[in-house]
Amino acid sequence: MSVTETGSAHPEAYAHLAAEAAKLDAQDVLRDKRAEFVLDEDSVYLDGNSLGALPKAVPGRIADVIGREWGELRIRSWTESGWWTAPERIGERIAPLVGAAPGQVVVADSTSVNVFKAVVGAVRIARGRDEARDEILVDAATFPTDGYIAESAARLTGCTVRPVQPGEVPAALGPRTAAVLLNHVDYRTGRLHDLPGLTAAVHEAGALAVWDLCHSAGALPVGLDAHGVDLAVGCTYKFLNGGPGAPAFLYVRAEHQGAFDSPLPGWNGHVEPFGMEPGFRPADGSLRGRVGTPDILSLLALEAALGVWDGVELDAVRAKSLALTDFFLRCVEAYVPEGRVEVVTPAGHAERGSQVALRCADAAAVMERLIATGVVGDFRSPDILRFGFTPLYLGFADVERAARLLAETLDTV
Amino acid sequence: MSVTETGSAHPEAYAHLAAEAAKLDAQDVLRDKRAEFVLDEDSVYLDGNSLGALPKAVPGRIADVIGREWGELRIRSWTESGWWTAPERIGERIAPLVGAAPGQVVVADSTSVNVFKAVVGAVRIARGRDEARDEILVDAATFPTDGYIAESAARLTGCTVRPVQPGEVPAALGPRTAAVLLNHVDYRTGRLHDLPGLTAAVHEAGALAVWDLCHSAGALPVGLDAHGVDLAVGCTYKFLNGGPGAPAFLYVRAEHQGAFDSPLPGWNGHVEPFGMEPGFRPADGSLRGRVGTPDILSLLALEAALGVWDGVELDAVRAKSLALTDFFLRCVEAYVPEGRVEVVTPAGHAERGSQVALRCADAAAVMERLIATGVVGDFRSPDILRFGFTPLYLGFADVERAARLLAETLDTV
Repeated sequence: MSVTETGSAHPEAYAHLAAEAAKLDAQDVLRDKRAEFVLDEDSVYLDGNSLGALPKAVPGRIADVIGREWGELRIRSWTESGWWTAPERIGERIAPLVGAAPGQVVVADSTSVNVFKAVVGAVRIARGRDEARDEILVDAATFPTDGYIAESAARLTGCTVRPVQPGEVPAALGPRTAAVLLNHVDYRTGRLHDLPGLTAAVHEAGALAVWDLCHSAGALPVGLDAHGVDLAVGCTYKFLNGGPGAPAFLYVRAEHQGAFDSPLPGWNGHVEPFGMEPGFRPADGSLRGRVGTPDILSLLALEAALGVWDGVELDAVRAKSLALTDFFLRCVEAYVPEGRVEVVTPAGHAERGSQVALRCADAAAVMERLIATGVVGDFRSPDILRFGFTPLYLGFADVERAARLLAETLDTV
Repeated sequence: MSVTETGSAHPEAYAHLAAEAAKLDAQDVLRDKRAEFVLDEDSVYLDGNSLGALPKAVPGRIADVIGREWGELRIRSWTESGWWTAPERIGERIAPLVGAAPGQVVVADSTSVNVFKAVVGAVRIARGRDEARDEILVDAATFPTDGYIAESAARLTGCTVRPVQPGEVPAALGPRTAAVLLNHVDYRTGRLHDLPGLTAAVHEAGALAVWDLCHSAGALPVGLDAHGVDLAVGCTYKFLNGGPGAPAFLYVRAEHQGAFDSPLPGWNGHVEPFGMEPGFRPADGSLRGRVGTPDILSLLALEAALGVWDGVELDAVRAKSLALTDFFLRCVEAYVPEGRVEVVTPAGHAERGSQVALRCADAAAVMERLIATGVVGDFRSPDILRFGFTPLYLGFADVERAARLLAETLDTV
């Protein structure tokens, strides 16, 4: 996609798109959600795909968790304040956001650690059916940690890893494929991959599909159950606004839970954690994805943050997300001189997540200057300007303003 | 150790020991530290070996982390508020408490996950020297998660696990021993194991020693560097008061860091995390123990909690810990009818951690009743009353009162 020349010298273009933004904001069914977040009017926060904004419910809840639950009840809170069951309780809160029926999602550990559980778990299930399966296919453009962890999982289970572009997965599948690890949305380009189609292809080849939902959970409908996904992991501090480093989630499809054999069988995943048995007997359901003692402060901040989803339909989120990114692309096209940036994110809705990536050679310097104007996106090496669009708290006027300040910044760098 | 008959009907015994407690409290060099914790006068908290009490510095610090660092600075806090470097910065704060010079301790993930990193890492180092080493010895009385995780580590690295009582480790060592996983203090009995002697024996056999410091870090001097420990893990929510589920720490001895090959090579442990390289290149030093994005709220609560150690000498902590447990045992002997409980914790100082375990058949019911009196210990299946003594916030009058209420409870259950 190319951008037509208008530049920053055409105030009538600004006025036109600003008026359209006002109209779109007035029609926005999610517009009241913004009031549930801490945001300032001086900036446009387009980095919610890296760290979501603070939901207003969090500070008071955590003050109570620290002051009363920890400070006064102390050890009693493990039972009386529901700390012990938080990983599965919060998992159930996330489950409908990723299209999962109850009993399949647990919140614990980092995304990387959950990728390890999921990939080793998937390989073991695949080999339980057919010992000859010894290859793991991994998205060649993956966020790096998935690739690093998949390499480690392969090394420890006697498999090899083959990096493959997601579109080439169907051709790469074969009788040796044990598991395929894919990203639902590419962290760099914002490209949305075909989760239903690729999962079906993986199954046709007799392998298991493991999806990384870091950039889709909370941004668009995922449909884990509906599309037959085997295992999935996802982050909670991006579009789920759980706070910096909030624990990740693990989905293990119900039909696989009996065979899910975690490489991290910690005492929290034991069927009787306080039985203090010398041998590991896994708990039923998603509980066997738990490992060690849950990090309660981070977990309960996430739980409070998830309150913003009350009454929200994911279809409305998706519709607004696409409207926001469409509008941003139109504003960029109108304001930014042709050739100054290249739009990396696909134009087709079926291939777009909730972010827009623009390429320009001086992206690092541009983003630094842009952030100084109050428009906060991020830079991804070597040449990507990345903008995330969180439908729950962004409006169309924000988007128009961001594009305008981006154009001015590109004009002056 | 038996207890002599006195029972709850001898008020003169109470008066005598209560007077002694007052004298000991007056001489206590750590007595001002209690004011740095949130505690109430209605209870005696003897469960700090499970969840440490709340340091007063935590609530205000976390309110600022959430409200300003997350709420206002948002993504900028990863650099501007020092979030990114928190795992190693807090590691350096813990290092002197376990006798480690800088560059060897990092805080991240749960204890269970760190046991996995440490045991697989130790096995790989041992086999790098001698491929024939394929056995892992594990403390037969270990807290269960260590045993479960060691089994998984063994299975994934082609080793076997042999449970051994710590005292029998020297005899069990041999040319096939790769690594030995031991607890510094037994979680159930409170027995302190001989870390210097056992580590030396492990080294003499050409193997690596991995120590679990969950029940010793913050309770007594550990001396990791001085005693040549290879790898260690420990919990931060017990005697380090970091809060429920606060992340654990990992120690990798400087001389092993070049060969430390983590089974969880997440992007946070990469030498250039934002380089987004397809291949993993480990960071130097303790940084390679990092995995995924750190859970900032839990981490920074821990950091604030560690402020209570300012100006504290571990030798004074150890001296007071032993004095507290000695005094508790004397009070129990004076107040509790002979034969009602069996003291499980060793009498010798060299073999005692910072807890006292008493055995009685009806321990579960006794502990429930005792907690109702305001004396908070815990029950460990099947028959153990467990009492932890945190020298920073407990006094001798607390101890006398706890023993008195315990005697009364034992008399009425």
